[in-house]
Amino acid sequence: MGISGVLVARKVHVAVISTGDELIHITERPKEGQIRDVNSDMLAAAMTQCGAVPVSYGIVRDERRLLDKAVAKAVSECDLILISGGSSVGEKDATCRVIASQGEVLLHGIAMKPGKPTILGKVQGIPVVGLPGHPGAAFFVTQLLVVPLLDRLTGRREKRYTVRATLTESVGANHGRAQFTAVAIEEREGRWYAAPIRSKSGLITSLAASDGYFAIAYDCEGAAAGAEVEVIPYS
Amino acid sequence: MGISGVLVARKVHVAVISTGDELIHITERPKEGQIRDVNSDMLAAAMTQCGAVPVSYGIVRDERRLLDKAVAKAVSECDLILISGGSSVGEKDATCRVIASQGEVLLHGIAMKPGKPTILGKVQGIPVVGLPGHPGAAFFVTQLLVVPLLDRLTGRREKRYTVRATLTESVGANHGRAQFTAVAIEEREGRWYAAPIRSKSGLITSLAASDGYFAIAYDCEGAAAGAEVEVIPYS
Repeated sequence: MGISGVLVARKVHVAVISTGDELIHITERPKEGQIRDVNSDMLAAAMTQCGAVPVSYGIVRDERRLLDKAVAKAVSECDLILISGGSSVGEKDATCRVIASQGEVLLHGIAMKPGKPTILGKVQGIPVVGLPGHPGAAFFVTQLLVVPLLDRLTGRREKRYTVRATLTESVGANHGRAQFTAVAIEEREGRWYAAPIRSKSGLITSLAASDGYFAIAYDCEGAAAGAEVEVIPYS
Repeated sequence: MGISGVLVARKVHVAVISTGDELIHITERPKEGQIRDVNSDMLAAAMTQCGAVPVSYGIVRDERRLLDKAVAKAVSECDLILISGGSSVGEKDATCRVIASQGEVLLHGIAMKPGKPTILGKVQGIPVVGLPGHPGAAFFVTQLLVVPLLDRLTGRREKRYTVRATLTESVGANHGRAQFTAVAIEEREGRWYAAPIRSKSGLITSLAASDGYFAIAYDCEGAAAGAEVEVIPYS
């Protein structure tokens, strides 16, 4: 049609904040009780993958005053705020209090596993998501809630497909929460198979070995080996 | 693990050459018998999407001497050469002769529709792909052959999934070639449906309206409405 340029929207800028007294930068050597901050880089990569621009606000100590300042700065500079860690209900978990004081907490806690300690809030019209500190859980919540939110903010109408696959092993679930299980997707003789990856939500090795996940409903006790499941490949 | 940097491979550089006396740049106004060069931008976008770096060599007149020069330059600068147009067996189709004179033609012509006039060759160890001039056909050949080739060159082990979907309309095929039909993938009540997009291979509107494609084998007369097909979403 002879059109060589089109008007585009500015890319969505996503603030990435890690909170926790135990966190150190990945280049530092952990002392007793310390762990490396995996979430900052993981979330930045996930946001880049989805066409957004991640803006890192580094590691913030789990202290109301410091997190208050970081969130206020992020809200003035970004279109979406991700805070990982400090989203539980412990005395040291400041995320919920900070969102409530600057704006509004829409929900705190979701009946899902992993990902229970998740917060959704809004500060000056900017969505703020409090993610679990455990990397595996933070990753799942990002896939389930943050990616669709980002699609909405960018105006991107990406269709996300599922892969119908045969489960290679049975997976138990018996806790009244929707369960999301990481699987490796394998092809054999023109059919897709989903091999469950078992691990704790704190570990990222399970994510590295998996291609996507499938859901078991909160009122379901599990999925049997041989069952057909709809696998959602990672975005 | 405290590793903050990893060694990565250089991105694959892909030369994009459009040939054809009828082609003009998209900003020019076509006179009688002229058409805008859609393929350069389409192929560049597809290569970027797959993690490669497209290098445009512009529009080259369908003349042996000019194409010879462009291919020699591209081979010295890039890791993969895409030439769209001039891949048929007409007197003016120089692509095959140029590849044969500088290197080796591995195959010329594939029993598929669209995409019959496709050339695979090699010049000084660099793969050279001659694509059909019709944009729709060039796009399908890129999806089917160039994307896997690029994965091999980049070392990327991307799993590409299929979506099992119900065909909404019957699609005929009766010409002894594997047929690839563009479809829009739609979700209704948790099931996937594939709606065929009918158009000629010269048109790109069908690509814009579709999400992927499915294959009908060369010895099959078509696919009936209601049949389950494996749709391959575009990369």
